[in-house]
Amino acid sequence: MVTDSIITALRGVLGNGNFALHEPRFTEKEQYYVQKCIASTYVSSVGAYVDRFEKELAAYTGVRRAVAVVNGTAALQVALQIAGVQANDEVIVPALTFVATANAVRYLGAVPHFADIEESTLGLDPRALRDWLKGIAEPAGDAYRNRQSGRRLGAIVPMHTFGHPCDLEGMLAVAHDYRLALVEDAAESLGSRYQGQHTGSFGLLGTLSFNGNKIITTGGGGAILTSDEHLADHAKHLTTTAKMPHRWDYVHDEIGYNFRMPNLNAALGCAQLSQLPEFLSSKRRLFERFQAALADIDGVRLMREPSDCESNYWLQTLVLSDALADQRDEILQTTNDVGLMTRPAWRLMHRLVPYQECPCAPLSIAESLERRIVNLPSSAGLA
Amino acid sequence: MVTDSIITALRGVLGNGNFALHEPRFTEKEQYYVQKCIASTYVSSVGAYVDRFEKELAAYTGVRRAVAVVNGTAALQVALQIAGVQANDEVIVPALTFVATANAVRYLGAVPHFADIEESTLGLDPRALRDWLKGIAEPAGDAYRNRQSGRRLGAIVPMHTFGHPCDLEGMLAVAHDYRLALVEDAAESLGSRYQGQHTGSFGLLGTLSFNGNKIITTGGGGAILTSDEHLADHAKHLTTTAKMPHRWDYVHDEIGYNFRMPNLNAALGCAQLSQLPEFLSSKRRLFERFQAALADIDGVRLMREPSDCESNYWLQTLVLSDALADQRDEILQTTNDVGLMTRPAWRLMHRLVPYQECPCAPLSIAESLERRIVNLPSSAGLA
Repeated sequence: MVTDSIITALRGVLGNGNFALHEPRFTEKEQYYVQKCIASTYVSSVGAYVDRFEKELAAYTGVRRAVAVVNGTAALQVALQIAGVQANDEVIVPALTFVATANAVRYLGAVPHFADIEESTLGLDPRALRDWLKGIAEPAGDAYRNRQSGRRLGAIVPMHTFGHPCDLEGMLAVAHDYRLALVEDAAESLGSRYQGQHTGSFGLLGTLSFNGNKIITTGGGGAILTSDEHLADHAKHLTTTAKMPHRWDYVHDEIGYNFRMPNLNAALGCAQLSQLPEFLSSKRRLFERFQAALADIDGVRLMREPSDCESNYWLQTLVLSDALADQRDEILQTTNDVGLMTRPAWRLMHRLVPYQECPCAPLSIAESLERRIVNLPSSAGLA
Repeated sequence: MVTDSIITALRGVLGNGNFALHEPRFTEKEQYYVQKCIASTYVSSVGAYVDRFEKELAAYTGVRRAVAVVNGTAALQVALQIAGVQANDEVIVPALTFVATANAVRYLGAVPHFADIEESTLGLDPRALRDWLKGIAEPAGDAYRNRQSGRRLGAIVPMHTFGHPCDLEGMLAVAHDYRLALVEDAAESLGSRYQGQHTGSFGLLGTLSFNGNKIITTGGGGAILTSDEHLADHAKHLTTTAKMPHRWDYVHDEIGYNFRMPNLNAALGCAQLSQLPEFLSSKRRLFERFQAALADIDGVRLMREPSDCESNYWLQTLVLSDALADQRDEILQTTNDVGLMTRPAWRLMHRLVPYQECPCAPLSIAESLERRIVNLPSSAGLA
C-alpha cells in the first residue's frame, strides 16, 4: 500500500515512461568540444582540455589546485597516499559508502576501520566517533594508534552521501584531536556546500568522481582537490608515472601510476562543467516536487539538505521509518518493475566478504539506515 | 658527422618540417563514432562500443576474449593477479622496458626480478635466463624459488619492445620448466605476429595498451587478452569493482578495481581498429624507406623484425654500434633541435631509485643497448 502511494507520488512528478536512476545530459557543446579534441589529435594524457578542466574545477570548488585523474577511486588512492597513509595503517571510513572508499585504503595496504553515520546527514557522526576513539585510541609518537589492533590511525575519510555534506566542523575537530589526516571523499557532492564552502575543500585533500552516473561526467574520471601546492605537485607527479621532467630521458623517481585523465574525457568534462549550475537548479526543483508529492505518506521522509548546507541533490533519497523497513524490498521490486528505477543503499562495508574482518565502531545507525533507504530517479532535467 | 648523415637520411624520407615521435591519425569515422556515443548518453562503463571493441580485439588477435580496461598498466596488474602472482613473489621482467611493467608487479606487492635481453629482438633472452635460473632457482612445492632471496618465482613477463616480438618459443619453454605463469606485455605490439600468431596470445594472458602514443589509441586504454573463459570472466569481474550481478543490490565479493574502459574511449577505439591494417602497411613502408636511406651509414643499424616474425614497426629504432654509443646524446640533441623528435631507450629498470634494490640477472646486453638506441619519428602516414 505504501508502495502504491509512492508510485503515485513519483508518477505525479515524473509522468509516464521509464526513468533511469541517473542519466547524463549532453548538449551540442559536448559534441563540439570532443570533436575539437579529436581534430587536435591530442586525445591522450596531455592536452588543453585537461589543463582547462583542472583550472575550472579548482575555481569552482575554491581550492588552489585540481588534478584530473582516471576516476574517483584513483583520486582517493593517491590522495590518501599523499596524505601520508602507509601500509598497515588504519583509515576511518563510513560503513555506509560505495566500496571504492574502502578499496582505495586497501590498495595502499592499509586497513579500513568502519565508523557509524548519523541520520540527519547520512555521513560520519563526529560525536559517536569521538566516543569510540576515546575508548580505543592511544597516543603513539606523533599519531594515535588503535590499542586493540596495534595499528596507527592514519587518516579519516568523510564521504558526502548522495551529495549531502556531512558534519565537517565536527569531523575536522575529531581529526585535529586524534591527529588524523582528513581526506574528503566528495565523489558524490560536486556542487554541494557546507557553510557556504565547497565540499572537498575542507580536508588536506578532497576527491571528486565524474563517472557516468555522477552529476557531471567525463565518461570515467575523477579529480584530486587541494590548496597545498606542494601536495598538488606531488599528486600530478604520482599520477603521471612519476616521470622526471626531461626533454627525452625516461627517469622515474618513485613508484607512480598511470592515472592521468585523457584529454578526450576532459573535453567532455569542460562542456559538462558549464552545465553544472543548470543541473543543480533542476535537481533542487526535483527535490521540491518530490517533497510536495510525498509529504502526505506516513513513514516516508525525503532526504533534505542538512542545516547550513547546500546539497547538490545528486540522488534523491527516501528514508523509510523503522516500521516500513520490511517493505523496502517490495518498494524496490515494484518501482523497478513499472520502469521507475530505484535502488537501496549499498551493502554496508563490514558485511562484504573482503572487509568482514576489519575493525568496526558500533554501527547501529548505519545498520538501521541500510534497511530503510531507497534512491529515486534523480537525473537533471526531470524537473 | 654521423649525426649529419642521419639527419640527411631522415629528411630524405620525411621531407622538411617538424615530426613528432608518434602521433595518432583520425578520420571522419572517429568523429562519427564518438558523436554517436555521446548522443546515446552511454559514455561511461557500460555501452555497445565497449562490447564491440572487445569482440573485435579478440577476433583480431585470435584469442577467445578481450577485456577492455583504462590503460595498459591496469591490464598488466590485473593479468598478473589473475595469473596467481601474490605479494612477495618475484616476477621476471626485462630490464629494458617502460616503467609500467615493473610498476604493475609492485602494485601487487610482488618484486620485479630483472633479466637481460637479446640484441636481435630487444626482448628477454631465454638462453641467458635459463642459465641464470639454473644457478639461482630451486624447487619449492609447486613452484620454484629464488634461493638468494627465498621468494617464490611467480611469473614471467616478456615485453615486445617497440613492437618486435621476443623469442616466445624460448620463453614458453623456460616458463614451463620453471613453472612460471607467462603473461605477455604486448602494450607495444598490436599487429605484431610471431610465427604467424598474434603477440599477446601465447601466454596465459596478454595485455595491450591504447595510450595516445600507441599504434591505435583510445585516449587512454588497455586490454587483457586470454583464451581461458574463466580467467576472462574473472578479469571482467575484477575490473568492474567485483560487483555481483543483481538488479539493485551492491555486493562485492572481492577487492576489485574501477578499471573498466569508458564507452567514449571504446568508440574511438573501434574506429581506430578499423584503420589498423592501413597503419601497419604505412609503418612497414616507413621502415623500408628509412632502411634504404640509412643503409650506407657505418655503425648504424635500423631495427628489423626478428626472423619468423611480423613486427608492427611501432617505433622505428636505430641501434648504434659500440663505437658510436658516445655520440648518442649528440644525435638526440641535434635531431630534436631541428624538429625531428627522437628519444633514447628507457633508463634501465634496475637503475631507477625505486627499483635499484631488486634482484637482477647479469644485464650486459641491456646495459650496452641502453646506450645505443635512438627511436625515430614513426607515426603512421609518414610513408
